[in-house]
Amino acid sequence: MSSADAEGKAVSNGIPAPDLDLPYPDKPEIITENLQKLTELAPNERTQFIFRNLIAKLHEFVKETSITTDEWMTAIQFLTRTGQTCTNLRQEFILLSDVLGVSALVDALNNPQVGNTTESSVLGPFFTEDAPDVAQGESIASEGKGDYLYVEGRVFDPQGKPIAGAVIDTWETDGNGFYDTQYAKREKPDCRGRLRSDSDGKYFYRAVVPVPYPIPGDGPVGDLLLALGRPNMRPNHLHMMIEAPGYRKLTTALYPDGDEWLSCDAVFGVKKSLVINYKDIDDEAEARRRGFPKGSKFKLLNFDLILPTVEESKAAFAQLAKQNAANAL
Amino acid sequence: MSSADAEGKAVSNGIPAPDLDLPYPDKPEIITENLQKLTELAPNERTQFIFRNLIAKLHEFVKETSITTDEWMTAIQFLTRTGQTCTNLRQEFILLSDVLGVSALVDALNNPQVGNTTESSVLGPFFTEDAPDVAQGESIASEGKGDYLYVEGRVFDPQGKPIAGAVIDTWETDGNGFYDTQYAKREKPDCRGRLRSDSDGKYFYRAVVPVPYPIPGDGPVGDLLLALGRPNMRPNHLHMMIEAPGYRKLTTALYPDGDEWLSCDAVFGVKKSLVINYKDIDDEAEARRRGFPKGSKFKLLNFDLILPTVEESKAAFAQLAKQNAANAL
Repeated sequence: MSSADAEGKAVSNGIPAPDLDLPYPDKPEIITENLQKLTELAPNERTQFIFRNLIAKLHEFVKETSITTDEWMTAIQFLTRTGQTCTNLRQEFILLSDVLGVSALVDALNNPQVGNTTESSVLGPFFTEDAPDVAQGESIASEGKGDYLYVEGRVFDPQGKPIAGAVIDTWETDGNGFYDTQYAKREKPDCRGRLRSDSDGKYFYRAVVPVPYPIPGDGPVGDLLLALGRPNMRPNHLHMMIEAPGYRKLTTALYPDGDEWLSCDAVFGVKKSLVINYKDIDDEAEARRRGFPKGSKFKLLNFDLILPTVEESKAAFAQLAKQNAANAL
Repeated sequence: MSSADAEGKAVSNGIPAPDLDLPYPDKPEIITENLQKLTELAPNERTQFIFRNLIAKLHEFVKETSITTDEWMTAIQFLTRTGQTCTNLRQEFILLSDVLGVSALVDALNNPQVGNTTESSVLGPFFTEDAPDVAQGESIASEGKGDYLYVEGRVFDPQGKPIAGAVIDTWETDGNGFYDTQYAKREKPDCRGRLRSDSDGKYFYRAVVPVPYPIPGDGPVGDLLLALGRPNMRPNHLHMMIEAPGYRKLTTALYPDGDEWLSCDAVFGVKKSLVINYKDIDDEAEARRRGFPKGSKFKLLNFDLILPTVEESKAAFAQLAKQNAANAL
């Protein structure tokens, strides 16, 4: 509740009544105008800019759709439930941002492709900090978690110079379509690991073939997709996050071609340059040489990662932001 | 988490991949276009209309402001905290809607003034269902809760015909600026009551003089107002909600003139026609006649309430909605 003074009287937040001579909001447009004038009180220019735009769009939405009192209450209850569904292991507001295309949009705007560098993709809600370090050639997945996959490639700068010691976080679903964190009993991280590129920029590790999976369907976002008649599937993919000093951190994912959910990914993560093809190998000696304990079959994925420098990346973002702000005027 | 089938494999929400031939969202504008095409899957025209508009405005906002990844994460955390601050007795998302002018806007759009009828004002978060019935002339406030106020008036239809048996819910702060629900220990409802207009449409009851008060400042919405440099005060007011069969339910509030927070009300509730003047009475006999137990002083508020019919009100809303939708094109 609000604060009270020593006499038990309610006290304000200490900000005095502004000298703005606002008219009474007798008409809808005056509500918007008064709020915009009050927004000029914000101490910081960026905050003012963001809220001016937010208020304009939000009020346009309410006005142009003539949202009814009942519809607005439904929205309030939906947002409340979304907040209350969040836990330490689940972020339902990120999921909402994902299915409304905002996460993909924020990613696209913040990480524009620079020259020939590798494109980014959405982070998603399944990254964890506790991935184990794996040596080159080791497996990120326990035996039995899915069909064999071998991943290899090199990390380069935009001029084709290998980047040594780049830290690569990689994570994926098991063969059932679940991340390790989705199991009620998670004893240790699985289907995730962290490795470093060698002096030639090379990286290589064993994994399992990821499969398509639904985003969590038992919360308010799942209900929303049902109400919108939208499928909740993501195409199968392998997540990678690459960090090296002086280069922009790259969060991306690789999407094997042929998946029926590629173009209608529930969270809009797929880009053409990230759609890859596996090579099917059926050779027992080769399988053993790569470290697979059983059989002769595995899929091979070869993909090079090219990182832009921090400076190039910042310049590209600044230019795009300027363009987008100018287009808004 | 998501559902699994008998074999432990993750299963979708049952909606098949749509036959939409969507391109990969390689560019920001394709994300928006794909999402809009997917929105056409919504089974209901109104849902499609609302989400088409919502998506357009939301994506414009993100794009025009070039929201950074960090700023978006701050927004996600703010919304999560707002949801998690809600309890059975506190609705922080309504408070957010209030301070962003949306509640006032939804009210204005849904309840346009019809002819000479009484204007509406925001409901606010302090209405409860458990107000006691009070007979005409009785007090809605316990003795000692504030300075004396006497409220009287009549309920009319637009042609000036008295409406008998109109149910009037009325609630207010005590003299300290708190609603009864804001006290940790609330034994019974106070400063709220429900009465009925008599055969002449008359209503009259005793109350206390409400005082200006801050909206709750200890949650995320309080933090937001501080970050925006905005005061969190509401001018003093008396809430009324009037229902009579065949007439539009009126939710309104009366705002005494002279309050320094009238034009910068944190929730944009004040309209010119709802700003009233008390009459100061200092007459012991009159005080006793009105039922006040002590002293000679009280304030007198006389206000007539005019309700539009349900039909008039629906027609006015439909016309305004049509205009606003047309303006949006």
